[in-house]
Amino acid sequence: MITSSTVFEQWATAHQQRAEQALASTLPSADTQPERLHAAMRYAVLGGGKRVRALLSYAAAELVGAPASSADAAAVAVELIHAFSLVHDDMPCMDDDDLRRGKPSCHKQFGDATALLVGDALQALAFQCIADTHAPQALKQVQILAQATGSRGMCGGQDIDLHSTGKRLSRDALETMHQYKTGALIRAAALLGAYAAGQTEEKHLTLLNQYSQNMGLAFQVVDDILDATADTHTLGKTAGKDALQEKSTYVSLLGIDEAKALVTTLYEQTLQSLAGFDQQADSLRGIARFICERPF
Amino acid sequence: MITSSTVFEQWATAHQQRAEQALASTLPSADTQPERLHAAMRYAVLGGGKRVRALLSYAAAELVGAPASSADAAAVAVELIHAFSLVHDDMPCMDDDDLRRGKPSCHKQFGDATALLVGDALQALAFQCIADTHAPQALKQVQILAQATGSRGMCGGQDIDLHSTGKRLSRDALETMHQYKTGALIRAAALLGAYAAGQTEEKHLTLLNQYSQNMGLAFQVVDDILDATADTHTLGKTAGKDALQEKSTYVSLLGIDEAKALVTTLYEQTLQSLAGFDQQADSLRGIARFICERPF
Repeated sequence: MITSSTVFEQWATAHQQRAEQALASTLPSADTQPERLHAAMRYAVLGGGKRVRALLSYAAAELVGAPASSADAAAVAVELIHAFSLVHDDMPCMDDDDLRRGKPSCHKQFGDATALLVGDALQALAFQCIADTHAPQALKQVQILAQATGSRGMCGGQDIDLHSTGKRLSRDALETMHQYKTGALIRAAALLGAYAAGQTEEKHLTLLNQYSQNMGLAFQVVDDILDATADTHTLGKTAGKDALQEKSTYVSLLGIDEAKALVTTLYEQTLQSLAGFDQQADSLRGIARFICERPF
Repeated sequence: MITSSTVFEQWATAHQQRAEQALASTLPSADTQPERLHAAMRYAVLGGGKRVRALLSYAAAELVGAPASSADAAAVAVELIHAFSLVHDDMPCMDDDDLRRGKPSCHKQFGDATALLVGDALQALAFQCIADTHAPQALKQVQILAQATGSRGMCGGQDIDLHSTGKRLSRDALETMHQYKTGALIRAAALLGAYAAGQTEEKHLTLLNQYSQNMGLAFQVVDDILDATADTHTLGKTAGKDALQEKSTYVSLLGIDEAKALVTTLYEQTLQSLAGFDQQADSLRGIARFICERPF
């Protein structure tokens, strides 16, 4: 018997591979000058990661009836922005993390200066790959992605995080920080995929806004739970860092049990919001389950 | 008597102010959350710099008969990219420079982590401000700017520079490095201004490509001469660093006199290429003189 879970797993694997191939062909080859920088960019992006943001772009394209090929640029762009943020976030002046996706992080492998340039160049490439499509909706996609990346999005969230370490945040303040830091790019991943179809209906945009707000939050709560409960080998990155750095997290704020209950509530709310949509929303349902059921 | 030099100075002052105002209104205010990051972004961008790249965008718009208002987004975007590159370039893992535009550099004032995020957020804002115009040519502008910024442009040139320190480069290799590192963004500044008019004639694009290739090179040769001959106070940044860091420069390669002769040759070639154009090219002529006659 093929369960809906198996169907989703097959879809996810196929679309992870699709994103990986699109990323590999978008990134300049390692024999294009400057060779060392291009090798470092490929190292930082390829061969790892769950590609949740790319999957969201493809699933949102499905929701609006657009083919996966029309969402390739969106999937690549959001993964490039995510990879750039990981490279910079791991640097000694930020989180100072030696391990990423089970390998030495980019600055450990190539040095701090190259890692800085890798992040900068990946960001530029994200915008370039959208512009290179020449699609009518590409400018709208650039606008959404730039807003989600900059000071009122991901970078802003990282700055709030920097200045919150060692402080006890209120739940509202924690939620605001994560809406900027993680939520903005997750929302952008969904919207960019939906815009792959060109014009997009209001009901789809409303759904995707609500979906990505819930899933952005769930993603972060699960991350906090895993940081507190899983080991470094399972995570592929250093575990237990939040407590060590005295960061406010959903676990420190709510405790493990209440944090898990929050994930369940967010998952149920999300399924409800998808109830009015048929199988065009199946991949969104699968991603929600995948986010909310990561091993714990 | 009003000389052409005075007319250009008035034009340059007016358009520097125009760029400054456009930058000030594009950057989020320092009381927008996250306040500290926005204050640092404004610190890094406003109140300094010759705004050569913004002037090039305005001058290129004049060449094609477009009003200055249509080139504001281009001028802002290229200055934001330039400012982001200076912030990252000054960081300890890169050039480690404490002084920029006569003030403490961004990481000295706000710390390394914030400086990293300032650069990242300024890059995103550059693409956002172009996309926010909703102009038909904006996607083309995003494409040109992204290419000029990334690994096959400015970031690539910085990486080549990193790995060339202490080596003696050939003149060809030095020119390639600077075409990436400085030339690409100078060319983008001119082309973005020309595209402000929408469709652009081939003869204008050809002229601006040639102009920016010569001026990008001249700009770098003059920079090398000034680094070797001017003092830190005059430069507003640390002088004499090239020799200290054993960098290949046009001065180390050609000597001061031949480097100055090269600037003169590039200036004359540029005037010749502009000969077929009437007063619509006067601002381009003025910028060429300004670049080639910086005090030495």
